[in-house]
Amino acid sequence: MTEDSPIDFLVALASLPYEQLPAKPLRLARQSLFDWLICGLAGKNEPVAQIIHTYAEAESGPLACASLFGGDMASPRLAALSNGTISHALDFDDTHFDHVGHLSVGIFPAVLALAEKDDLSVAQMSSAFLVGAEGAIRLGMVLGVSHYNCGFHQTATAGAFGATMAAGRIAGLDAEAQLRALSLCATFASGLKSQFGTMGKPLNAGLAAANGIEAVRLAQVGFSTARDGVFGPQGFVETHTDNPDLSALRSDVTNLSDFSFRFLSNRYKFHACCHGLHAMIEGLLDLRARHSFTADNVARLELRTAPRWLRVCDVKRPATGLEVKFSYVWLAGMVISDRATGDDRTYTDVLAADAGLSNLAARVEVLGDASVGDQQAEGTVFLRDGRSLPFRHDLAHPIPAEALRDRLRQKARAVLRDEAGPLLELADGIYDAPETVSARQLGALIRRRG
Amino acid sequence: MTEDSPIDFLVALASLPYEQLPAKPLRLARQSLFDWLICGLAGKNEPVAQIIHTYAEAESGPLACASLFGGDMASPRLAALSNGTISHALDFDDTHFDHVGHLSVGIFPAVLALAEKDDLSVAQMSSAFLVGAEGAIRLGMVLGVSHYNCGFHQTATAGAFGATMAAGRIAGLDAEAQLRALSLCATFASGLKSQFGTMGKPLNAGLAAANGIEAVRLAQVGFSTARDGVFGPQGFVETHTDNPDLSALRSDVTNLSDFSFRFLSNRYKFHACCHGLHAMIEGLLDLRARHSFTADNVARLELRTAPRWLRVCDVKRPATGLEVKFSYVWLAGMVISDRATGDDRTYTDVLAADAGLSNLAARVEVLGDASVGDQQAEGTVFLRDGRSLPFRHDLAHPIPAEALRDRLRQKARAVLRDEAGPLLELADGIYDAPETVSARQLGALIRRRG
Repeated sequence: MTEDSPIDFLVALASLPYEQLPAKPLRLARQSLFDWLICGLAGKNEPVAQIIHTYAEAESGPLACASLFGGDMASPRLAALSNGTISHALDFDDTHFDHVGHLSVGIFPAVLALAEKDDLSVAQMSSAFLVGAEGAIRLGMVLGVSHYNCGFHQTATAGAFGATMAAGRIAGLDAEAQLRALSLCATFASGLKSQFGTMGKPLNAGLAAANGIEAVRLAQVGFSTARDGVFGPQGFVETHTDNPDLSALRSDVTNLSDFSFRFLSNRYKFHACCHGLHAMIEGLLDLRARHSFTADNVARLELRTAPRWLRVCDVKRPATGLEVKFSYVWLAGMVISDRATGDDRTYTDVLAADAGLSNLAARVEVLGDASVGDQQAEGTVFLRDGRSLPFRHDLAHPIPAEALRDRLRQKARAVLRDEAGPLLELADGIYDAPETVSARQLGALIRRRG
Repeated sequence: MTEDSPIDFLVALASLPYEQLPAKPLRLARQSLFDWLICGLAGKNEPVAQIIHTYAEAESGPLACASLFGGDMASPRLAALSNGTISHALDFDDTHFDHVGHLSVGIFPAVLALAEKDDLSVAQMSSAFLVGAEGAIRLGMVLGVSHYNCGFHQTATAGAFGATMAAGRIAGLDAEAQLRALSLCATFASGLKSQFGTMGKPLNAGLAAANGIEAVRLAQVGFSTARDGVFGPQGFVETHTDNPDLSALRSDVTNLSDFSFRFLSNRYKFHACCHGLHAMIEGLLDLRARHSFTADNVARLELRTAPRWLRVCDVKRPATGLEVKFSYVWLAGMVISDRATGDDRTYTDVLAADAGLSNLAARVEVLGDASVGDQQAEGTVFLRDGRSLPFRHDLAHPIPAEALRDRLRQKARAVLRDEAGPLLELADGIYDAPETVSARQLGALIRRRG
């Protein structure tokens, strides 16, 4: 045995040459093949067989009715998988801290994948997204931080149920079918944090959307399932957390038609770097807007942040563009010297070697302070002219709707540059007249190459 | 709030009428849509985007190259999903007690789905199945009974990794790609026991096969993933069992090319009823073969079985064909009166109302006996002519290869009746000349309608 780790053992086993496989188990394997053929041939007229067969054929057929980011169309599940993955590739999408994850990238791909065929409106799509997002948030809260800390990725797990609710609504499932879709989703839903730092992370968002689509389509064609695969015995919650908080599902809910949507605390990214840096950046941007000073005039900058971020994004001397994304001192310098932070392409290795930023970084002091919350930052800029300017920011404070609208337009321009035009043309319709913008218009938009 | 249970709450939330959705979160939902479109458009040229896009297109295209039980072809993943589900529909497939699950139905569908395109041989297919089955068994042992008892279904979970190994071998993945396929599978693998008793149970077998295919295809097109998503930190094992037994992975393995395959204790079903009845049926069949007596001559039959089965399959007065499948007294009578037990279609409601069997059942006594193992049964038939004939059987004793071959042929005839012909024609090739039988021949076989 030279295979050191368990997974290497499995790999070595899988690649054992044919000649090294002993005759006896090989013969038994062929008997298994014969037996499997019997079982499949015998089962092919069962009700479940006819249902799954219908689904497989429909999804494989020429039914490429769902647009893909980057061009072409695919089957709904595959479009959901691909669009979820692609839209999470930059990790620049929204975050919901109670949900412990990202909502749009797991749910909108499922919504659009089913909405295009019938050319539904943005009004229909966004209401489906809203109920799915709210369900995902609340299920994420039920699963709790212990689910996340154990290694599960709520974006994928709780997200799949949100995608199911949203896609089920788009598909017009009645309550009985929606219930089955959710219970089916329970046996599909998956996604692990061990994938972080690899392509597997955005894939988890695609998985949420794809699992939602598959659960809805199987419910639609008549699959039976557990009465309650989510909260019932041996259901998703029981198997996936040691410490469920069922009260979170309906907290603040006295009446379904008049309750406080947790979705309202959804947060958006405007800077293409680690979320731990955003409160500082916003605080400094606000300071820049209120006071006039040059970068040269800065004698010292003192930042106080939640201690846990020091282990995440306090790289003192970034060597690469990627490391800049995790560096308080570099980002502080970028904001003070009026450099843009909103475009992923800004974060190059050349930026990490910038002498001016290196010079500014030396004047920035980062302190952990347990009284500062995870979403907060505070500090003081000491100027050579004697002024000391305090700043603070709390990401938990919502941005007013109009301001958010402006910032998202800016984000589109910063990130998409020349390509922003077609999206910006749809913006007023999406915001103010959602019934006039159709899923196929969005499909055409995302299929644009470039 | 009239929605009583948590899942009903989610269903009610999903179906809230548009007019009842408040304006504020709806507006924010549209802002999320706008933001999501930015993220997707911005991400579409990322490496991960190009990879997932390629996969989605390929799977959606006219690449329906994999046969389905019951006719037609589909994409590989969908064929795996459908064929896995269909072949587990009757629950008449093999069982591996150490794995705690069913091997063929989760792995062969993945193998065949990829083998057809290149028309590989049964020799190649069955060796791929063998290494996948062995991997699934050993991973099932690592996850252990606590994984199963908690609510996970090894057929689906450990099975997905077996399907990945087998499909990866068929696809010709090198060790580096096979490693990635296994780590990707870790974020896909799922399947819960709460689905038992519904169509969701066979679906779990299809899921294993489908997840194996998807992991392999994504590894093949270049997806990056965790270094070790299976056994590493926050990997599948850590997140899915409290009590992993890593030693089980390599127990009895001193040298990869010469170790004892646990697969050898794979067991097959010959009776279309609950596994708890099989030891009794085999013991009585053996008794019938050695002693001549008629059903009328039976004064009393005493059966001793493992106490746990009394809660599973001791229905004293079955009302339906389904209940007959869980009735010691009915099956004892069927064997004694030479009725066939191997065809699912035998188990009708008419059979449950059979007066002769009811009469015999009254003479059968079923006793729990803690000294009798789960796979064992023993007892005595007391005849009116004064003879008392003891019987016993242990399913753990392997059936010799030739005898197994005969019994599987009998099973094919019993279950498939007139349709058995085309399968039986392939039997000698599958057993004795596996390199002469091709995947496309099997594909044509399973596509047969009827």
